[in-house]
Amino acid sequence: MKLIWIMLMLNLSLIDFVQNTSSLEYKILYFKQKVDHFGYVNSEMYMQRYIIADKHWRPGGPMFFYTGNEGDIFMFVNNTGLMWDWAQKFKAMLVFAEHRYYGNSIPYRNKSYDELQYLGYLTSEQALADFVTLITYLKLTIKGAADIPVVAFGGSYGGMLSAWLRLKYPHIVIGALSSSAPLLQFTGLTPCGIFSEIVTKDFVQVSPTCVQLIKDSWIAVRRVGKTDKGLKWLTTRFNLCSSLTHESLEDFISWLKETWQFLAMTDYPYPTSFLVPLPAYPIKSCTEMVMPMCSDGRKDMFEPNPWNLTQYAQKCSKDWGVTPEPYKIQEMFGGRNISFGSNIIFSNGLLDPWSGGGILKSLSESLVAIIIPGATHHLDLRSANSRDPPSVIKARYLEEKIIKKWLHQARSLQ
Amino acid sequence: MKLIWIMLMLNLSLIDFVQNTSSLEYKILYFKQKVDHFGYVNSEMYMQRYIIADKHWRPGGPMFFYTGNEGDIFMFVNNTGLMWDWAQKFKAMLVFAEHRYYGNSIPYRNKSYDELQYLGYLTSEQALADFVTLITYLKLTIKGAADIPVVAFGGSYGGMLSAWLRLKYPHIVIGALSSSAPLLQFTGLTPCGIFSEIVTKDFVQVSPTCVQLIKDSWIAVRRVGKTDKGLKWLTTRFNLCSSLTHESLEDFISWLKETWQFLAMTDYPYPTSFLVPLPAYPIKSCTEMVMPMCSDGRKDMFEPNPWNLTQYAQKCSKDWGVTPEPYKIQEMFGGRNISFGSNIIFSNGLLDPWSGGGILKSLSESLVAIIIPGATHHLDLRSANSRDPPSVIKARYLEEKIIKKWLHQARSLQ
Repeated sequence: MKLIWIMLMLNLSLIDFVQNTSSLEYKILYFKQKVDHFGYVNSEMYMQRYIIADKHWRPGGPMFFYTGNEGDIFMFVNNTGLMWDWAQKFKAMLVFAEHRYYGNSIPYRNKSYDELQYLGYLTSEQALADFVTLITYLKLTIKGAADIPVVAFGGSYGGMLSAWLRLKYPHIVIGALSSSAPLLQFTGLTPCGIFSEIVTKDFVQVSPTCVQLIKDSWIAVRRVGKTDKGLKWLTTRFNLCSSLTHESLEDFISWLKETWQFLAMTDYPYPTSFLVPLPAYPIKSCTEMVMPMCSDGRKDMFEPNPWNLTQYAQKCSKDWGVTPEPYKIQEMFGGRNISFGSNIIFSNGLLDPWSGGGILKSLSESLVAIIIPGATHHLDLRSANSRDPPSVIKARYLEEKIIKKWLHQARSLQ
Repeated sequence: MKLIWIMLMLNLSLIDFVQNTSSLEYKILYFKQKVDHFGYVNSEMYMQRYIIADKHWRPGGPMFFYTGNEGDIFMFVNNTGLMWDWAQKFKAMLVFAEHRYYGNSIPYRNKSYDELQYLGYLTSEQALADFVTLITYLKLTIKGAADIPVVAFGGSYGGMLSAWLRLKYPHIVIGALSSSAPLLQFTGLTPCGIFSEIVTKDFVQVSPTCVQLIKDSWIAVRRVGKTDKGLKWLTTRFNLCSSLTHESLEDFISWLKETWQFLAMTDYPYPTSFLVPLPAYPIKSCTEMVMPMCSDGRKDMFEPNPWNLTQYAQKCSKDWGVTPEPYKIQEMFGGRNISFGSNIIFSNGLLDPWSGGGILKSLSESLVAIIIPGATHHLDLRSANSRDPPSVIKARYLEEKIIKKWLHQARSLQ
């Protein structure tokens, strides 16, 4: 009962608060992008949506460029208050670029997700090339912007993209603030159970009893779900839109699990609507973003669920006709071996289960890890709030100082 | 007459000497590569040919990896004697990887060059990804090679690839010797006439009279070529296989021009067969490798031939249905703005017309330019020869010292 009560509360807090964005001034624009940046077989183009806010920009001021993640760009426009907070101070132009295949940036309209033939251009390499092309175009066409320094911002998968943009295209962005980016959540780099362990630890901190309840709940739900009467009871209790069946029980249990994971990721010090519509494992696809996840029911509060690459690959092959490439991201972007890079801030909230796959130690003088105790998933990217813990205030202060240093360096080189 | 005599001599020296390679020990192997590394629409694979020579390799010794350019890989196996000379000294394993769409590494067999649908995967980004995948595979599968440092070698376009491999994938190769690589021979980075000017300067050094003769020859050939009798005379004089016509006169003149350019590029201190079958402007394609070339007949000895991007693009559109992307390479690889990189040697022979688009000044402590007066197109990559000028001996000595330093650094980090 306690469990159900917590869940209902949780649902409420996730859905009912929508940040008011009417005070933000911006333009919505579209840029024609190549569907394939790395070959010439497909010459089709698509329209990439992006947002510009230049109210505070003054010539010489930088461009702050948000490398959009998996979702409608307004999700990130509305939940990256830090950039808005800083715009005036830095005299910065803000640009938020939507990630291909999300929001209104859909290469093949309603066919986009149907078949690999259309979906196959959804890769991080292509998304990065979109950003490179867009930044180049903006600098060329906006008066006074030809030589302005560009700083990439991103959180979560968007944080990976911002870091990779700096690593791969350092001539395009002078640095990147990569917040809560699980850059090491790939095969062989990080134990697959760490996400579940951090989620569990978060709950233990609040209430060990609650953790035990959740642990017990899996058996309870499965037992209750065995009978039609039990399914009906669950349907009523959880206020489900459609009646649970024996077939959909597994989905329901997944949903329960993901709810706890969401809560751990988004346990902000104040209510937000952020991340509601997202899956727990962003851009889980059967291609290159293979991020091993598991639980063992001992170090964590979930049902044992080992990571099985073979099984995973078989399912991908059956569903999509593709073989996943679990080492691709490391081959492309370096995995742990990125100390050759420069000017990246890796910030991680320690409550955030994704921090287990984050870069938590500075790799060099200019590859700086910022640890934020008591913070969840990219809290530092949000607007300053009276309920912010001191750790995130300090993190933002450090980030600001470092970015100012990059800008100073960039200007002295001109 | 003098002109014709020089040309006949030239023809002879280009064709008749083939380097004896029987003393080299190597294995010829094939590796299955994805045709498209950056998307999942095309899942086809092709076999990439590569050569391994591991006679002198000892565990812990490095891999020297030649990033194959446009041509059969044996062209580079046989003309990169430096790697063979150094194998024992460095206890190095040599690998020569063939560039996709050349030699025996043809994705779509005899259809490969027919239509864009097959040819469209011929890009430098895809070629680099081939190299990354191959190196990763070799390190994983060759016993004792898991952690060995890899140094990239390349000349000309292959030199671009070796530099780009280090810039883009520094976690894959610890450094690159990029010889005679016209990395700046792109739109807006280098005046289009510099190639023709250096060719002319080379000839002026030997004989200003000869330059005047060549300059005059264009008008003479065109005048003679106006009549059928003249065409016949040219056919006989130049020993042509098929009779010249008014239509083929332009091709003949191009061939004459390219002959002078070849001679300037390959004026080695001893006879070689290298570069014979190559076009003057490597991998000139209508896609990303747009390398502006022009002559004005004043600063050079050629007919005025301005660079016209619009016309060029129209022809590409007509012939291939593609629009060339003259700024693509700069967007992808940084153009002049690559000082963020590290561990690359840019060597250039000053007689080489391609040196005009080369990096001739060191960009940082570890991005080192080596200038080789009196040397032509990547002479430093060739075997030591008793007729080598002191400048190339010194260059190789410097290169060896720098590569040893990289290896030392790489080992101290392990």
